[in-house]
Amino acid sequence: MKRPLILVTNDDSVYSKGVSELINLARPFGDVLVVAPDRARSAQSSALTVTRPLLYEELRREEGVRVISCTGTPTDCVKLAFSLQLPEVNRKPDIVLSGINHGANSSINVIYSGTMGAAIEGALHRVPSIGFSLCDHSPQADFSHTLPFFREIIEYVLEQKLPQGVCLNVNAPMGAIKGIKVCRQAPGLWSNEFMASQTPFKRNCFWLTGSFTNEEPQAMDTDEWALSNGYISVQPVQTDLTDYKLLTTLKF
Amino acid sequence: MKRPLILVTNDDSVYSKGVSELINLARPFGDVLVVAPDRARSAQSSALTVTRPLLYEELRREEGVRVISCTGTPTDCVKLAFSLQLPEVNRKPDIVLSGINHGANSSINVIYSGTMGAAIEGALHRVPSIGFSLCDHSPQADFSHTLPFFREIIEYVLEQKLPQGVCLNVNAPMGAIKGIKVCRQAPGLWSNEFMASQTPFKRNCFWLTGSFTNEEPQAMDTDEWALSNGYISVQPVQTDLTDYKLLTTLKF
Repeated sequence: MKRPLILVTNDDSVYSKGVSELINLARPFGDVLVVAPDRARSAQSSALTVTRPLLYEELRREEGVRVISCTGTPTDCVKLAFSLQLPEVNRKPDIVLSGINHGANSSINVIYSGTMGAAIEGALHRVPSIGFSLCDHSPQADFSHTLPFFREIIEYVLEQKLPQGVCLNVNAPMGAIKGIKVCRQAPGLWSNEFMASQTPFKRNCFWLTGSFTNEEPQAMDTDEWALSNGYISVQPVQTDLTDYKLLTTLKF
Repeated sequence: MKRPLILVTNDDSVYSKGVSELINLARPFGDVLVVAPDRARSAQSSALTVTRPLLYEELRREEGVRVISCTGTPTDCVKLAFSLQLPEVNRKPDIVLSGINHGANSSINVIYSGTMGAAIEGALHRVPSIGFSLCDHSPQADFSHTLPFFREIIEYVLEQKLPQGVCLNVNAPMGAIKGIKVCRQAPGLWSNEFMASQTPFKRNCFWLTGSFTNEEPQAMDTDEWALSNGYISVQPVQTDLTDYKLLTTLKF
């Protein structure tokens, strides 16, 4: 059987530590094609670049790994990877791995996440896709404790696949890990979302910031609970956003 | 009873025709606060601005309407509107109306849409929220045939509210409208997503484009079917992305 082609991307840029860790994690499973943003594109959700063309550049090429930097968003990177017909690649990725993100993407943050935007795009292209994140924003974050668990999840997905249109949002806590929990998205709320500041020309300006509140802190089946209690959270994420409950009752 | 405070935003910019139409549509229902991007921010999904501060500017102020231009994405605009403590406003919006978008946001395009990013953000702030789009990209699009239907939907949502965390994705066809249909998101696929071009310096570059395919063209309960058959589609959109079906079967 042909080795799978594994697309690796992220939102912290092709130069981040997290993507290097993910490349190393992916290599034993197949040929690795990296197409990742040329700079940090955090919180880009599923944003697309529509007002200018994308450019890309091959940064590195060795046996089993090609690393390409792209001027687009994480979602652009995935779209481009599915469209590229590079010599010696010339086929579509069989799986998309996004991350490892420096910072959590649990609860409603899955919606803003560029890491998860890329995984969602993989699912829209009908291949199994996983976004990986670690609850540590440091550029020098230590990912080593997460790797055996992330490896297990990749193995599972390569063997079992995932239902069409569904991807996984995997988050890992800092420190010792007790195991993996399959979780729902905790309902959460951001508040105090801006810090006021001033430009040199005395105009008011506002930096996005904020405090996050888990609104069901007692519930033990959420990603927030898992992460607070030393577990890796795995949220199955759907790309059909339809609320089927309301679909049956809404009438005009 | 106090008149509701209606937040109006969009992704085609505060200067677009669609947002003017929505302002006029909203005015009879309450006080209107417009916070919309200072330039076109299409396909921004739920992207946030995290690497620079936001600035805003009041463009117009008259009885019952204030219009503010903001340097951020549609989602930033909604966040800012919930944080602003403007004199004579000083309260949070009771409803978020986004659009009217110049172009459809049906099927999987709900995921990329900045119009829907703003509506989703309203839902995350726990207020009823609606994104409106017309299947016509022209800057001079004629919205007049949609207005009585959009008015009915706003009335319904103001009276009935929506379940927490759910918003509506409303799309209207061009030409005569037969009625309103509550729909699920059609499964769709984009292909041929890039047009190759060259920079003046002979580097290859790639413009996002593509052909959309509705993958269940026979199904009569999708938004794509409704739009193709002269109906307005109303998709209830959830902000909990968890796939509850896979949640119960996935095991590690």
